[in-house]
Amino acid sequence: MDSRHSKNAGMKPSIASAKDKPLFTPGPLTTSSAVKQAMLRDLGSRDYTFIDIVGQVRERLVALSGDDSEAYEAIIMQGSGTFSLEAVLSSTVPPDGKLLVIINGAYGQRIAHIAEVHKIPTTRLAFLENTIPDVELIAGALAADASITNVAVVHCETTTGIINPVEQIGALVRNAGRRYFVDAMSTFGAVPLHLAQAGVDYLVSSANKCIEGVPGFAFAIARREALLETEGWARTVSLDLLAQWKGLQANGQFRFTPPTHSLLAFHQALLELEAEGGVEARGARYRSNWETLVTSMRALGFQEYLRPQDQGYIITSFHYPKHPQFDFNDFYQSLNDKGYVIYPGKVSDADCFRIGSIGRLFPTDMRALLAAIRETLEEKGVEL
Amino acid sequence: MDSRHSKNAGMKPSIASAKDKPLFTPGPLTTSSAVKQAMLRDLGSRDYTFIDIVGQVRERLVALSGDDSEAYEAIIMQGSGTFSLEAVLSSTVPPDGKLLVIINGAYGQRIAHIAEVHKIPTTRLAFLENTIPDVELIAGALAADASITNVAVVHCETTTGIINPVEQIGALVRNAGRRYFVDAMSTFGAVPLHLAQAGVDYLVSSANKCIEGVPGFAFAIARREALLETEGWARTVSLDLLAQWKGLQANGQFRFTPPTHSLLAFHQALLELEAEGGVEARGARYRSNWETLVTSMRALGFQEYLRPQDQGYIITSFHYPKHPQFDFNDFYQSLNDKGYVIYPGKVSDADCFRIGSIGRLFPTDMRALLAAIRETLEEKGVEL
Repeated sequence: MDSRHSKNAGMKPSIASAKDKPLFTPGPLTTSSAVKQAMLRDLGSRDYTFIDIVGQVRERLVALSGDDSEAYEAIIMQGSGTFSLEAVLSSTVPPDGKLLVIINGAYGQRIAHIAEVHKIPTTRLAFLENTIPDVELIAGALAADASITNVAVVHCETTTGIINPVEQIGALVRNAGRRYFVDAMSTFGAVPLHLAQAGVDYLVSSANKCIEGVPGFAFAIARREALLETEGWARTVSLDLLAQWKGLQANGQFRFTPPTHSLLAFHQALLELEAEGGVEARGARYRSNWETLVTSMRALGFQEYLRPQDQGYIITSFHYPKHPQFDFNDFYQSLNDKGYVIYPGKVSDADCFRIGSIGRLFPTDMRALLAAIRETLEEKGVEL
Repeated sequence: MDSRHSKNAGMKPSIASAKDKPLFTPGPLTTSSAVKQAMLRDLGSRDYTFIDIVGQVRERLVALSGDDSEAYEAIIMQGSGTFSLEAVLSSTVPPDGKLLVIINGAYGQRIAHIAEVHKIPTTRLAFLENTIPDVELIAGALAADASITNVAVVHCETTTGIINPVEQIGALVRNAGRRYFVDAMSTFGAVPLHLAQAGVDYLVSSANKCIEGVPGFAFAIARREALLETEGWARTVSLDLLAQWKGLQANGQFRFTPPTHSLLAFHQALLELEAEGGVEARGARYRSNWETLVTSMRALGFQEYLRPQDQGYIITSFHYPKHPQFDFNDFYQSLNDKGYVIYPGKVSDADCFRIGSIGRLFPTDMRALLAAIRETLEEKGVEL
């Protein structure tokens, strides 16, 4: 084997990656081989090559916001998506501020919980988990309480897979002169959202969701004008959003050690997103995955938790079958043994499990999963 | 090329990794090819294999604490080392507590700063950066202020490379009945420290230091009895140390998405640490790197910032040469162009640069660096 041959072979998917089970989850997700191969480097965090890559990543993230007015900034934050949520909440609500959280699932609840731990006065406007928030009620809540300074909502409530009307809510919030925060953890990069048009001041998403990177960090996209008002508001050091941005602006470096390998993977993931055709094209693939999934699941007799018109193409909650032979842990384990990883439910008032349509998955993967589900039901004697 | 051939080639170090510059820094560090190859997998964060690996990692971390009394717990925390520092500080000082920070460098200052941002009453006991803290003065500070509940110190101040007498300080703190926190970021895994004997309640270190993993998380080793007292003390959600531990204990899973790939790399790094002969053997290699470094640097005419008896074998600060042709940025860039990455200084009262001896480096790497330094000095006409 000559050396050129060996080089090419080195860049191929490894055995380990070829054998991994596809992940039908909300993340960490299945990623491409090239994304993982990009991690086979040790770059210093002050290395010129690394600083250049971080700069490119930040520019590409802003470009994904749909805005070309240069009004937004991308701020990468170490940790999981929740760390970035907490960074925005603990850094951008003024010391005498008040937060309104629009809730229809566990992730909306989590936002309110984080704010409360930071002793931020918080109003929870809660709706049923299978219901789109009522925009009239939100308008009423804003009109009724002038002390509300910030409003937060989740774009796709991963609890159920419901897609909330973030543009409509944004128009209300902007008209009311409040700051608007969208948790777009599981949508950014695959569900088009024009930040400026939607009146978004802060958005958060994560490396290991629709951009198909690996976990290790998340990021905020912030409207610079809003961000610059927040001087002195941060309630922590690590999660200080403004300080993190200032550090990156000053010399392209992070204040604290960044996950260099995850960032190299993410850079590759952004190139692949562009090669696929951007947010619209990725959304189309995920939609196609989702359509393949629900069509076949319905044919098998499964029922979705949400009404079809409220359901996004990111993740879908299915009711447990009523058959006495159905046991979720058993079902999960059997699918896992066959090489397919699905996800437990999180709905508070119904027994559900979830199947994600995102990550490096294609309709053919969905069909393979469905075949495994059919086989498992037959093995267990579960008839729907 | 048959498929078996291709398989083997896939497991070899990639071209990218073979070409990377060795990192003579405090981290991220040069890691082994096998550590990076371990990241070529996408495992779900609830996957049985992943949960098993996390469990093994936690057990091995506790074993490295030198304690077999089962008194300690390993708590992995997403983010950089600073995030774990902040987790311990914001979670383990009681609401009415007071922190004494022993400071002889930037990392001690950072601990005090973090505590102050959390509005924790904080006393800074500061010493010169080139001086070992005076144990008598620490004893005096504890005796003088009964309201001090917690004491923090850095093991190796990476600012200079000085090694602080954490065992002696620990004996004092334990006798005074206070809680003791050691920031062992750049020593854990390579500088032996018996946590129980040193009276340590909490220790923090990071994945990408002496254990030679990649960045993405850090960890605390906590004395269980101390940890269990901290219920309700956490000032954040993401960095809540007790909640993070409870989550891991409950089902082996993280509360929030873990950096799965970094954890796979770290598991491999721990196996390699064991194969090398554990903490003592790794410390011996680093010491050998350091001796090779300082012997040759002295021969070239460089002077260390610290007195030899205070200097650890982790990282060394060297004074800038006094020669007018010496410009650090130019020197750094020239070495970088030759393929060697060193580190800027951080000492507040002297112009220094730093060279690390840790990571997947051997004396032969140090000698190659020294040859490049000699060549660079000659090119620039800098005579020492």
